[in-house]
Amino acid sequence: GDETIVVIPGDGIGQEVVPAAVDVLEALDLGFEFASYEAGDHVAEERGTPLPAETRAAVEAAEATLFGAAGETAADVILPLRSAVDSFVNVRPARAYPGVDAVRPETDLVFLRENTEGVYAGLEHRLSDQVATGTRLTTRAASERLAEFACSYLADVETDSFTVVHKANVMGETDGLFREAVFDVATDRGVEPDEVLMDAFATRVCLDPTQFDVVVCPNLAGDVLSDLAAGLVGGLGLLPSANLGPERGLFEPVHGTAPDIAGEGVANPSATILSAAMLLEFLGYDAEARAVRGAVESVLESGPRTPDLGGDATTDDVTGAIVERFDVE
Amino acid sequence: GDETIVVIPGDGIGQEVVPAAVDVLEALDLGFEFASYEAGDHVAEERGTPLPAETRAAVEAAEATLFGAAGETAADVILPLRSAVDSFVNVRPARAYPGVDAVRPETDLVFLRENTEGVYAGLEHRLSDQVATGTRLTTRAASERLAEFACSYLADVETDSFTVVHKANVMGETDGLFREAVFDVATDRGVEPDEVLMDAFATRVCLDPTQFDVVVCPNLAGDVLSDLAAGLVGGLGLLPSANLGPERGLFEPVHGTAPDIAGEGVANPSATILSAAMLLEFLGYDAEARAVRGAVESVLESGPRTPDLGGDATTDDVTGAIVERFDVE
Ligand SMILES: CC(C)[C@H](C(=O)O)[C@@H](O)C(=O)O
Ligand SMILES: CC(C)[C@H](C(=O)O)[C@@H](O)C(=O)O
Repeated sequence: GDETIVVIPGDGIGQEVVPAAVDVLEALDLGFEFASYEAGDHVAEERGTPLPAETRAAVEAAEATLFGAAGETAADVILPLRSAVDSFVNVRPARAYPGVDAVRPETDLVFLRENTEGVYAGLEHRLSDQVATGTRLTTRAASERLAEFACSYLADVETDSFTVVHKANVMGETDGLFREAVFDVATDRGVEPDEVLMDAFATRVCLDPTQFDVVVCPNLAGDVLSDLAAGLVGGLGLLPSANLGPERGLFEPVHGTAPDIAGEGVANPSATILSAAMLLEFLGYDAEARAVRGAVESVLESGPRTPDLGGDATTDDVTGAIVERFDVE
Repeated sequence: GDETIVVIPGDGIGQEVVPAAVDVLEALDLGFEFASYEAGDHVAEERGTPLPAETRAAVEAAEATLFGAAGETAADVILPLRSAVDSFVNVRPARAYPGVDAVRPETDLVFLRENTEGVYAGLEHRLSDQVATGTRLTTRAASERLAEFACSYLADVETDSFTVVHKANVMGETDGLFREAVFDVATDRGVEPDEVLMDAFATRVCLDPTQFDVVVCPNLAGDVLSDLAAGLVGGLGLLPSANLGPERGLFEPVHGTAPDIAGEGVANPSATILSAAMLLEFLGYDAEARAVRGAVESVLESGPRTPDLGGDATTDDVTGAIVERFDVE
């Protein structure tokens, strides 16, 4: 490994959890270089932009970036960064962990969120003081690319099929095209997906999350439904994510800057450390990724806990405990 | 009372739960006339349209309509019917009931869903085999009308404030205008709303639904988040709704046609009977509305239960028990 990992702590607890994840990666001794860049509210104040050109350029040049969180400027930071890695899918595993209080302890899902289109295409207009429009964009190409990824992903997680979530009964053309393209690819690949309307999914996942496994969805649906799943597993402090492109990846916790606890050194680093595990997997360090995940799980079950999980440990305590429990095969 | 209530059972269990609710209304002996009309999949098959002109005309002429559910044709039935009553708000109470198994037994929320715009404006285009667009529409007028209703509604439920849910960080112009208009009206009326992003709301309502009370949201957000709340209270079988216009109302359970149990006489009629209670309130029969609600609650707590709630009672058993427990002041 002579990779350079770009790290962007961002705002709030990003400044605490990203260094924690870097500690974990360094402890693996894989020879990574870390190059730190700035983004977020604090940069916007100083420099008039939340995403300086050199930060974007660094992400465009690196194979892997670890991002923390941004505050008010989040959309202006994370959306351009996702496109800087040409990310077409946001992979969001949502699982409950033994020992962590969860509304639905049997939750174990992965959302594959389309990462470029829908309302995120950014085509919004204020036509007058009275009227605004926003255009959702759906292309067959983006839908197919996501579906191809989903079909390949099934093998990794040893699953036969996935569930397509959409609202094609109301958005007949956009979600209709999405649905059609996903089914076309699946059929070619010999996969038979289920489908559930977005609203029905929200009810059903609360009633019984074991009905679902891999969930393929448009951009906004993925945003909202993965956050719903975070609620079912006990909070955003546990959800990692990977924004994957054909050559580069951007890894980030699903949570935000948590301004209420920022600066106190008690943020839960688990989501960011699990994001670092996804980064390791992306770079081909599968055994190390498993070791990190195993250590996080072990600490969640029986190790020190940060206050969000009812404990009184610090970020450093948890990170230290995770490093101690590595068990690389 | 010499009102004519239009009833549209529709498809599937609509054919069972609407008659059950009519039985309840008849038992109150208020002198209502009931005029039954057809809509849904079975009509589409016979007549080529799921919503015959006479059904729409009847809804346009009546002060109150009770609707059941429609199957595949749901969007082509319910969206035109909502506009037939010029409904600008869909009121969706979501509460857990003592005695009913719920993921979050402390849930007690009301969604006030914008009922005309957003992606429901229907402005979708398939530009080519490869590309589709859908236009979300937001007007200040519709947003203000909803906000005015919300401010007045607070007094009814003895609450000081409401929560505005939106995704203005991504949909800056459309949800931005919605947010702005709602805050402007609230400020004029001396109300100080909270605001939460749509994704964060999904997490937070699972973790602690008591944080929220009255929730004001755009159309699709209201659709998905109220279904999420249905999941938290133990299923769609319990959620009523009222589509309110300036002069007319359309009342319907939030659930669908439940094809798996349709025709067996075991559908849970509670959501539709609670919708009939909202209809009574709309027509000014407040004491009767309270009596119906009280009877439904009492039966949910200690009466016969349909299979969805773990019992083996029929729709008729439950309806009969509700009628027996009326206690009109
Ligand atoms: C900050 C925001 C633009 C972002 C999104 O909506 O994608 C966030 O909610 C997320 O899910 O990563
Ligand atoms: C059937 C569908 C068009 C409808 C909606 O999306 O509004 C339904 O889901 C509802 O919530 O009443």
